[in-house]
Amino acid sequence: MTSPSALWLDTAATLTRDAFGAVLAVPTRWSDQDVYGHVNNAVHYELIDTAVNRWLIESTGSHVRDLPALGVVVETGCRFLAELSFPATVDVGLAALHVGRTSVRYGLALFASAEHPIAVAHFAHVYVDPHTRRPLGVPDVVRAATKAIAR
Amino acid sequence: MTSPSALWLDTAATLTRDAFGAVLAVPTRWSDQDVYGHVNNAVHYELIDTAVNRWLIESTGSHVRDLPALGVVVETGCRFLAELSFPATVDVGLAALHVGRTSVRYGLALFASAEHPIAVAHFAHVYVDPHTRRPLGVPDVVRAATKAIAR
Amino acid sequence: MTSPSALWLDTAATLTRDAFGAVLAVPTRWSDQDVYGHVNNAVHYELIDTAVNRWLIESTGSHVRDLPALGVVVETGCRFLAELSFPATVDVGLAALHVGRTSVRYGLALFASAEHPIAVAHFAHVYVDPHTRRPLGVPDVVRAATKAIAR
Amino acid sequence: MTSPSALWLDTAATLTRDAFGAVLAVPTRWSDQDVYGHVNNAVHYELIDTAVNRWLIESTGSHVRDLPALGVVVETGCRFLAELSFPATVDVGLAALHVGRTSVRYGLALFASAEHPIAVAHFAHVYVDPHTRRPLGVPDVVRAATKAIAR
Repeated sequence: MTSPSALWLDTAATLTRDAFGAVLAVPTRWSDQDVYGHVNNAVHYELIDTAVNRWLIESTGSHVRDLPALGVVVETGCRFLAELSFPATVDVGLAALHVGRTSVRYGLALFASAEHPIAVAHFAHVYVDPHTRRPLGVPDVVRAATKAIAR
Repeated sequence: MTSPSALWLDTAATLTRDAFGAVLAVPTRWSDQDVYGHVNNAVHYELIDTAVNRWLIESTGSHVRDLPALGVVVETGCRFLAELSFPATVDVGLAALHVGRTSVRYGLALFASAEHPIAVAHFAHVYVDPHTRRPLGVPDVVRAATKAIAR
Repeated sequence: MTSPSALWLDTAATLTRDAFGAVLAVPTRWSDQDVYGHVNNAVHYELIDTAVNRWLIESTGSHVRDLPALGVVVETGCRFLAELSFPATVDVGLAALHVGRTSVRYGLALFASAEHPIAVAHFAHVYVDPHTRRPLGVPDVVRAATKAIAR
Repeated sequence: MTSPSALWLDTAATLTRDAFGAVLAVPTRWSDQDVYGHVNNAVHYELIDTAVNRWLIESTGSHVRDLPALGVVVETGCRFLAELSFPATVDVGLAALHVGRTSVRYGLALFASAEHPIAVAHFAHVYVDPHTRRPLGVPDVVRAATKAIAR
């Protein structure tokens, strides 16, 4: 059985920006480029992380650190489709693939100048108690926000 | 059908260091930690990238930039099993899951103080012409080196 | 004798955005924050580097990599005046403190929500031959562009 | 009057590893290199930050986060003398230039394969209350440790 994340990577490459309920612009930095003259693979995860957290702050109206539970990243993956270079700004399209009791799984696509993504990715948060690190329910404001970008 | 990468993520969590033909020590940095007091998810990919490239340099005896083809990253993924903090040094276990005509797919596990991994990951290079960026055959020295860590 | 860079650090803290001929917006990223909940000191240099290079690209109309000489960083410094947190966007004010035969020295100030800087910095490029790494004259387009932001 | 930091930058370029009471090895990462094929300027500050914090942990026997006061970075500077490339490991030489009531100023030199530094730097911590962020006295364990590397 193919997981929702694997399925996302297999199908998202042909999506365009308008397929996403949320699109966040995240610019590249000079130092993001590695010796091959393109943005290093690890940096894509910084862009994704930034988009998810900024979207959470904007759509819930509360800083992620003030929520009753912390969203800890438990799994991520990215397929790189085209090279990216500074000074491009990336539009990160964000969709909620699955909202469980304690976790949220996002599907993402990164767009540069072209119509189709330069990368597709998935990203999963598990919500935990800030002290014990035990799983807690997805905070209500997060659950509500994800509905608007459900896929 | 489950892909070799997905299968790796599902099974590697119980492996120990001695399951790997190559283990590379990569220390964390102070700035790797984010506001939650653990190493940020994106940083794990920097550690992985560093381990793969250092292993390639050491096992092929040539700097990766001097090879006839560039290894461009086409897909990565990581499952985070436990939190990691500075000043830990991570032992990155490296296995070759698949060596194709133009690509190499690695399975990795990141170990900190415990016997079992704090994260498991996969990482795929496609070898391309430095100028045209078209796929080329996996360089002979890389193909030879991967045999020693085949799984 | 106090150097122009030291003098800049001592006097720039009271400047406001309108004192600068160029101001570039550079957003923070989630992973920029360290365990103390503020943007790590090293990240400020990424923001500065990004602002200088983006300004060079925009004001010269050519990508910095296409210039006849490479701008290699020879000295930087930063005084941190207030803490910075994600998701702030920083306005980087840019002034040319000195343009020599082969080098350009910039004075910078980083602004967040307040009127006065959260950090002041200096940054110096020496232009070198891409192959021999020997100093070359500051490219004409760079020399012309710096006039507009001379201080 | 020349500041101790400026004086350090002017004189440290001719020092060798044995001039330092503490030398910490910090390896470079693949992604540290930028498009010019050398370690990006901002990364040097990550290496410095890591060396200072690791030295503090090792020499005080307590994790920096468990000290009664936080060491917040108030000023840094670096002069770049030679290019650095992956997979070099940098030896960071550490000296205490000045220990005041609430602050510590370090002088540093970064060594790669050669006898003399590839970069010289300074770095200052002010110790503050974790909650109010007001200056506090330098913790006794830090004050004691710095004596061994005073210059």
